[in-house]
Amino acid sequence: MKILDGGLELVPGYRFAAVECGIRKQGRLDFCIIAADSPCNAAGMFTTNKIYAAPVLLCRERVDNEVRAILINATNANACTGDEGYNNAVLLTRETAKLLDAPKDSVLMASTGIIGHQLPVKKMQDSVPALIGALLRDNGALIPKAIMTTDTYPKSFAVEFAASTGNYRIAGTAKGSGMIAPNMATMLSFVISDCPVEKHSLKSIFKRCIDNTINSITIDGDMSTNDTALILSPVSGNCIKSEADLADFESALFKVLYELSRMLVMDAEGATKFVKVQVEGARSNEDAKLAAKAIAESLLVKTAFFGKDPNWGRIACAAGYSGALIEEKTLSIYIEDIQLLKKGVPCGFDKKTVEDALAKREFSVLVDIGMGDGKAQFLTSDISYDYVRINAEYST
Amino acid sequence: MKILDGGLELVPGYRFAAVECGIRKQGRLDFCIIAADSPCNAAGMFTTNKIYAAPVLLCRERVDNEVRAILINATNANACTGDEGYNNAVLLTRETAKLLDAPKDSVLMASTGIIGHQLPVKKMQDSVPALIGALLRDNGALIPKAIMTTDTYPKSFAVEFAASTGNYRIAGTAKGSGMIAPNMATMLSFVISDCPVEKHSLKSIFKRCIDNTINSITIDGDMSTNDTALILSPVSGNCIKSEADLADFESALFKVLYELSRMLVMDAEGATKFVKVQVEGARSNEDAKLAAKAIAESLLVKTAFFGKDPNWGRIACAAGYSGALIEEKTLSIYIEDIQLLKKGVPCGFDKKTVEDALAKREFSVLVDIGMGDGKAQFLTSDISYDYVRINAEYST
Repeated sequence: MKILDGGLELVPGYRFAAVECGIRKQGRLDFCIIAADSPCNAAGMFTTNKIYAAPVLLCRERVDNEVRAILINATNANACTGDEGYNNAVLLTRETAKLLDAPKDSVLMASTGIIGHQLPVKKMQDSVPALIGALLRDNGALIPKAIMTTDTYPKSFAVEFAASTGNYRIAGTAKGSGMIAPNMATMLSFVISDCPVEKHSLKSIFKRCIDNTINSITIDGDMSTNDTALILSPVSGNCIKSEADLADFESALFKVLYELSRMLVMDAEGATKFVKVQVEGARSNEDAKLAAKAIAESLLVKTAFFGKDPNWGRIACAAGYSGALIEEKTLSIYIEDIQLLKKGVPCGFDKKTVEDALAKREFSVLVDIGMGDGKAQFLTSDISYDYVRINAEYST
Repeated sequence: MKILDGGLELVPGYRFAAVECGIRKQGRLDFCIIAADSPCNAAGMFTTNKIYAAPVLLCRERVDNEVRAILINATNANACTGDEGYNNAVLLTRETAKLLDAPKDSVLMASTGIIGHQLPVKKMQDSVPALIGALLRDNGALIPKAIMTTDTYPKSFAVEFAASTGNYRIAGTAKGSGMIAPNMATMLSFVISDCPVEKHSLKSIFKRCIDNTINSITIDGDMSTNDTALILSPVSGNCIKSEADLADFESALFKVLYELSRMLVMDAEGATKFVKVQVEGARSNEDAKLAAKAIAESLLVKTAFFGKDPNWGRIACAAGYSGALIEEKTLSIYIEDIQLLKKGVPCGFDKKTVEDALAKREFSVLVDIGMGDGKAQFLTSDISYDYVRINAEYST
């Protein structure tokens, strides 16, 4: 696998466009499209929030169709907008399909932004011809910019890998991890590949990769109404099929999604640290994930990271209430390679050495539950003054 | 029911003492005792954290015994201290029982403070005679002071109520809601009454009251290794038994615990607001509690409270991921008596009026799920800059 210097534009078979539609603000790209030259298989992972946006409903209905494009808007979530919101999403995607000369239900949609406001549908409808007219392969770098909300930089990652049938590429973009800014919520991620993969394989591989990357990061534990991750892969009679090829595809996809997740955490509001929380020795992988998630989401753990405090008591405490099977007597905790707790007994450690480890921009925490083989990893950030400032000072 | 001007000292049949033992710091009360003049029935509610402190284990073992006293220390949690920690708690309580001329397993213990350090047991053992020697009914006000950690003021509340067999009193004290400061964790609450109640009634009434008061508050969602709530009531042949009397006892106990909970939330680290989150119309009370808890714990909701932002989208979103059965089409949201969302449709509301409501020190949020009769309430605070400062700057 080779890491490429670039983003979506490096994948053959796709074109891109973005415009300043003025959906909520003037002077920013807020409406964009990823269009495939030929029909694609798609797979999607969506918010599990029971309050979900109109475009999420539309994607759920259409993700099994042959897909030709993804239409995306920022600054308005089209959530809590009822039938009118859903009808607006249908209208805009059908208009797009018509101009692309594609089947009417072959366009997906994703939205991010304020909740509870109807889309300015007339203005957006009027922008669709300009979007379609501007489609160019070289426009790939516009998409990460157009989908940003509180992100401080556009995020994309691309790789190339060799299958038995030739070399293929996978590239993705993402924005805004967790439910970050008020009403400007939402994690969106879009991945494209020129590697043809059968639909059922694409679905299961995408789910596994998302579960261990984007679904294993946390900023504040909140889950948006609009979270959406989509992948497109061309429909073809020559799909990769061997186990080895599918494994290479999965590794390459995992790399793209892992690096995007890392960027999301690093760019989380107010974050100053990127922390890998690893849990081993749990009774099951599920138990390990419960513990890793509780530690990664604990406000007290996260403020301790910000304060460079080797506070293993908070880590033990969060593991203890996670719901995972845990006993004090078998619990060990490390920061980087320094052991702080050994089977329930506090270790003597050099405070300065641990503080130096915690002073780094990236470090890892390892919790060994000592009861089995279950493993999991969560990626998290610290919580700083800026997190509170950004989230309190935003005004609806 | 009459609210009394005072605390624990107003309940006949109990004596109190506190000393500066120097457990971790000099110059503060850190070791104290509540002693009953005669044997008591007890009931207790404890942390559900799988990593729990030695005194919690000891209380679980002894809470069904006839109880004579509760020994309490601050500044050291006696958690993650293994067998040695447990043996220390046994030693100190047996020493106390001996000097009280009480059965050896009739003394309970609670601790709060740093995790992972052994108690200075010799020093504490040497202080037990001084504690016992200082026991006085008038010393009631020392207990709330001696158990404080990051609390900014001592908390107690007392009431008197009339039963068919005479007037009785209930008084309680509490400290530190949620797992607040690093290693200085823990909610402790102690309630005493001169009203004799049979053990099984005492247990069920105490559980119900705690569930709807102290177990329905949240500061940061973290749960300590040491959380303990205990109630004592004298063993007697004249226990109150009629439904009416037991209901009056329960109302009075609820009032004491509710007011203590309110003080805990108001005094939460960095909090500037006290918010009652009420959920109605859920399919069940359990569903209502899930939704109320998710809203009360959402960082985004809490920072919006701090920012005085009428951000109903964040409230809807938290309810949506709570696990409760919810549909957008039946969801309504109010702040004070101002409706923001009506069956999924955003209401026009005067922003200034809502901001004025949010500017108050106390206000309520009502979420009507519109699907049944289930109800629940959670008490919460906002999250401010000071929360981050207090929790980041503390150094282990």
